[in-house]
Amino acid sequence: MGGDRAPRCEVDAAVLAARELDVHIALVGAEDLLREELDRQDAGGLPIEIVQASEAITMEDSAARAVRQKRDSSIRTAMRLVRDGRAQGVVSAGNTGAVMATAKLVLGTLPSVDRPALAAIFPALVNGSAKTGPVLIDAGANVDCSPEQLREFAVMGATYSRLLLGIASPRVGLLSIGSEASKGNELTREAYRLLEQLPLRFVGNVEGRDLYTGAVDVMVCDGFSGNVALKSSEGLADAVKELLRQRLQDASSGNLVAEISGRMDYGETGGAPLLGVKGVCTICHGSAGPRAIRNAIRLTREYILTGLNEKMEAALRGLASQHSGSRSRARAAGS
Amino acid sequence: MGGDRAPRCEVDAAVLAARELDVHIALVGAEDLLREELDRQDAGGLPIEIVQASEAITMEDSAARAVRQKRDSSIRTAMRLVRDGRAQGVVSAGNTGAVMATAKLVLGTLPSVDRPALAAIFPALVNGSAKTGPVLIDAGANVDCSPEQLREFAVMGATYSRLLLGIASPRVGLLSIGSEASKGNELTREAYRLLEQLPLRFVGNVEGRDLYTGAVDVMVCDGFSGNVALKSSEGLADAVKELLRQRLQDASSGNLVAEISGRMDYGETGGAPLLGVKGVCTICHGSAGPRAIRNAIRLTREYILTGLNEKMEAALRGLASQHSGSRSRARAAGS
Repeated sequence: MGGDRAPRCEVDAAVLAARELDVHIALVGAEDLLREELDRQDAGGLPIEIVQASEAITMEDSAARAVRQKRDSSIRTAMRLVRDGRAQGVVSAGNTGAVMATAKLVLGTLPSVDRPALAAIFPALVNGSAKTGPVLIDAGANVDCSPEQLREFAVMGATYSRLLLGIASPRVGLLSIGSEASKGNELTREAYRLLEQLPLRFVGNVEGRDLYTGAVDVMVCDGFSGNVALKSSEGLADAVKELLRQRLQDASSGNLVAEISGRMDYGETGGAPLLGVKGVCTICHGSAGPRAIRNAIRLTREYILTGLNEKMEAALRGLASQHSGSRSRARAAGS
Repeated sequence: MGGDRAPRCEVDAAVLAARELDVHIALVGAEDLLREELDRQDAGGLPIEIVQASEAITMEDSAARAVRQKRDSSIRTAMRLVRDGRAQGVVSAGNTGAVMATAKLVLGTLPSVDRPALAAIFPALVNGSAKTGPVLIDAGANVDCSPEQLREFAVMGATYSRLLLGIASPRVGLLSIGSEASKGNELTREAYRLLEQLPLRFVGNVEGRDLYTGAVDVMVCDGFSGNVALKSSEGLADAVKELLRQRLQDASSGNLVAEISGRMDYGETGGAPLLGVKGVCTICHGSAGPRAIRNAIRLTREYILTGLNEKMEAALRGLASQHSGSRSRARAAGS
């Protein structure tokens, strides 16, 4: 109920997904509005049900306050379905802060996860063979991070890239401002040392431009920097699309503008999953259209089918025991 | 001597600038190489002299070590010319870290400045009337910043926008990840309170996408986030240019590709000045061509002619006294 064009886009997306993918959909929100939208579609016989929720969190609501006060919001009701085993994943185009806060509150985190993080997939602009660009994690869930949290993000991002994007051995880079290990701020210099020791393919520090050079499959950063990288890119992409539309106005170039704009579509994958919560939660842009939300449902389905959460938890648990193991050895050596 | 195509690009740029602008140029570096390049040009009678320096800092050099060890480097020799009053500004396309460190070491900072910061001018992509996009400060000089330093950047950036870009009353935004005052990380939340109290047009928190929406004239941030925003944008712009080149190959679209690429040229202004040092220091991309370096020389000339340093120092000094004034009042009120 909280997206910019809710609930129409969401209902249209549900119908697309129920037709094209092997999924059951529960539409959560104001039953009358949802029923009305659903009746506009030829949706009879599709596996779509409606679950009533009396409140909705708006884009203008303060996330923290709304999560506390609107106890029967559509997003909270949807999360409860997952918590109670009546659904396996949530897709929302609502207030991002509220979705994340509700997910943490209602679902909780995986046992070995300290902080869930948003994993945004960047588009593959130039490289013809790659279907997507790198996964940027964290794209905005955690504004202040510790080096240990960045290590978690690296493990979760690499597992995600492997299972969902099919990259056998994802190259993991640390977003910094220069390639040498000594470059960066206090956080990245410390995180570099931790990432070096992980059992994954760490390629060292990378720069913002490497979101587009094909140098990495996973880019690890704090949520503030990640959000800056994502939003700067989205802003530039929108400006370029507008420029192309202005300059390429004849009919013959219409397809070209569409193709180039499509390649710069940061919502093509549909949404960014919040990795690390106990359950599956995919967050779409508030402005996401039916096709983008349908893609987010597809992503959520694959997330569930691949058992991503179990694999992430196993990788992180292994890490924790390895880590405490090395700490014990260090203590032993020091004594 | 340290640019990617040095010293040829630099000599060509010097000849362009000496012909087209009212400037005297000192080329600093290996005299024989510089003389050879200069002789290739029809540069007789132009106000260009050569100043010998026996060493050069490379892009691969560690900035900190090179600055300590290469005491006769071209960049250090050039900075000494400014310190000793024999030149008024330095333009370099060399190792950015080394240029910044040398500027701080040899020139020092303005009396009221704690940390010099890089001011990068973003291109104006869509807005037809604006000649440039916003000034982003700090674009990478300081990876870890305090709120007080961000306040300094705001004052320096606004003064720069006013004097160099001719914006009468620059709108200053704080780079964050949401518009409300409460959004952001510890640094931005604290900086927000300081910027609110400044005698300038503070428009609050802005996002990375506002580098391209025309919402601000100055965007203030720590050097890490600023570098991420700049490099992400450069990377995307390069990818888009490549994509356009691939797709628009017929001769008729050549001009269009050139025009659109030109609009996304982050080096159009030639370089980013390091604001806050005692002297003028403009830093170009290592890959800058003669035209970009010539533009950096023009920028440096305007910087000197407008008396930007004096104006910035006056604005910051006023601020310090106002600030200590308000602190005294607070103490008085509290006693």
